[in-house]
Amino acid sequence: MGDALIAPDWIALDWGTTNLRAWAMDAADTPLAEAGSGDGMGTLSRDAFEPALKRLLAEWRLPPQACIVACGMVGARQGWTEAAYGRVPCPPLQKPFTRAPAADPGLDVWIVPGLAQAEPADVMRGEETQIAGLLAQDSDFEGIVCLPGSHTKWVEISKGRIERFRTAMTGEIFAAIADHTVLRHTLGEVWDEGAFVAAVADGMAAPQDLALRAFEMRANALLKDGEQAARARLSGLLIGAELQATRALWQDRPVALLGAPKLATHYASALESQGTTPQLRDAEACTLAGLTAAKHRI
Amino acid sequence: MGDALIAPDWIALDWGTTNLRAWAMDAADTPLAEAGSGDGMGTLSRDAFEPALKRLLAEWRLPPQACIVACGMVGARQGWTEAAYGRVPCPPLQKPFTRAPAADPGLDVWIVPGLAQAEPADVMRGEETQIAGLLAQDSDFEGIVCLPGSHTKWVEISKGRIERFRTAMTGEIFAAIADHTVLRHTLGEVWDEGAFVAAVADGMAAPQDLALRAFEMRANALLKDGEQAARARLSGLLIGAELQATRALWQDRPVALLGAPKLATHYASALESQGTTPQLRDAEACTLAGLTAAKHRI
Repeated sequence: MGDALIAPDWIALDWGTTNLRAWAMDAADTPLAEAGSGDGMGTLSRDAFEPALKRLLAEWRLPPQACIVACGMVGARQGWTEAAYGRVPCPPLQKPFTRAPAADPGLDVWIVPGLAQAEPADVMRGEETQIAGLLAQDSDFEGIVCLPGSHTKWVEISKGRIERFRTAMTGEIFAAIADHTVLRHTLGEVWDEGAFVAAVADGMAAPQDLALRAFEMRANALLKDGEQAARARLSGLLIGAELQATRALWQDRPVALLGAPKLATHYASALESQGTTPQLRDAEACTLAGLTAAKHRI
Repeated sequence: MGDALIAPDWIALDWGTTNLRAWAMDAADTPLAEAGSGDGMGTLSRDAFEPALKRLLAEWRLPPQACIVACGMVGARQGWTEAAYGRVPCPPLQKPFTRAPAADPGLDVWIVPGLAQAEPADVMRGEETQIAGLLAQDSDFEGIVCLPGSHTKWVEISKGRIERFRTAMTGEIFAAIADHTVLRHTLGEVWDEGAFVAAVADGMAAPQDLALRAFEMRANALLKDGEQAARARLSGLLIGAELQATRALWQDRPVALLGAPKLATHYASALESQGTTPQLRDAEACTLAGLTAAKHRI
């Protein structure tokens, strides 16, 4: 009859803007299997969340009254149901969790709330759960957690609490410039690490030059018939500006990096070029550990 | 039989990436009529330029062998035909002009070449003609011409020559962020002049903060239910960074502003907040004066 049927004890969900990921967890909180789809919050109307979840879990044999624990943008105002923000400073997992209005009585879905900061105004949804996972693995961690992504978070941790944080939308600005300006003709797929590190230094020293240097890449491509390093250079200029802006957070402190491997590697390289050696953490393991910690607090 | 027929002596064309504009000029170089279309260079394949031009001029009675003088991206590599760049430092109008390969023998189309700079690499197409027009009106102008646009040019003029120039793609970066990041939910149509001027100062003082301040606007909108000034604030941050980057060009020198009235007004306001009072010039009048100067050099 084909593959052995997966029979989880509970389900862990990472439900972001662009993707939905699920893990089938056993009673000892070990993942048995995982599944994913492109049914991110950004693509779903309110009544489409439950069907998307059921499609993704269809191959697994859920227990009656399956406990499902979710983090991420699923709890945004435009999500399945709004999970009101906790307020920093605070530990990363804040009660109450919010129950999603599933029509199927067999689904018991809980959403972990994001966190908000009043001044400067800032918000996160999902990263708080990853940080809870990091602290579940390493309860003594003190320093800065950097979570690179479209919206990179810089989070100050002390005594198991999030003290403050800042978000830089560097990744989204990079994508907007790379895909929706004249530079779309100029950025190839090549990655030139030396050009990246040099551009990090340029971006830190003269962040005001971004709009000039960006056009200079285009002019170089037109006049010298080739600007092979443009992708790395643009990324370096933007990440360099971000490092300059967040220097008071990361300089002379322990930094943990927690994100998609490729982007985390770029941030690591940028930080190392400035004399800070970050610890690279496994983002997926932190997400799972955080969702597990949340499950035990329901 | 309806309107009097327009019978120009020659035709002036401003043919940019997104628009095509034509003026019917009499023998005394006075415009008799104008016409425009959305047939910009960016939307046309090579063999579509001549038909687009003929459509636009269809209502006018052209002389035999009509002299048509064009500036702008029509002379780019992806344009009707490439008009090789002149090299700065040099006067703005550089010979040779390039003849476009019109199939109709009644069309005698000349393209004014753009200008290139080797170091830092930079290019312009169209602005050189506007600057020639400014100098035709005011041959003694010494100082900086700022031409705001998607790609804002800062051009140093001395003794009738362009000495050097820099391009900031501030306008295109603004549009990319405004339309293709999460800020698209946050930027309204309101313009808050006070917020703009404050953001110019912030952008000059801390250009590295752009990606943080951009997300802060989003968080303000989420947490405080309203960020009315976000459009002006984002524009101010970006223009402030540009002013910081170009300060050595514009500080303590005469500055002429030459661009679309709304954007030129924002640049004027930003410069005035920094103690520099620019002269606002009529961009269309400069374009026409420049194309007229070019016509007399064919």
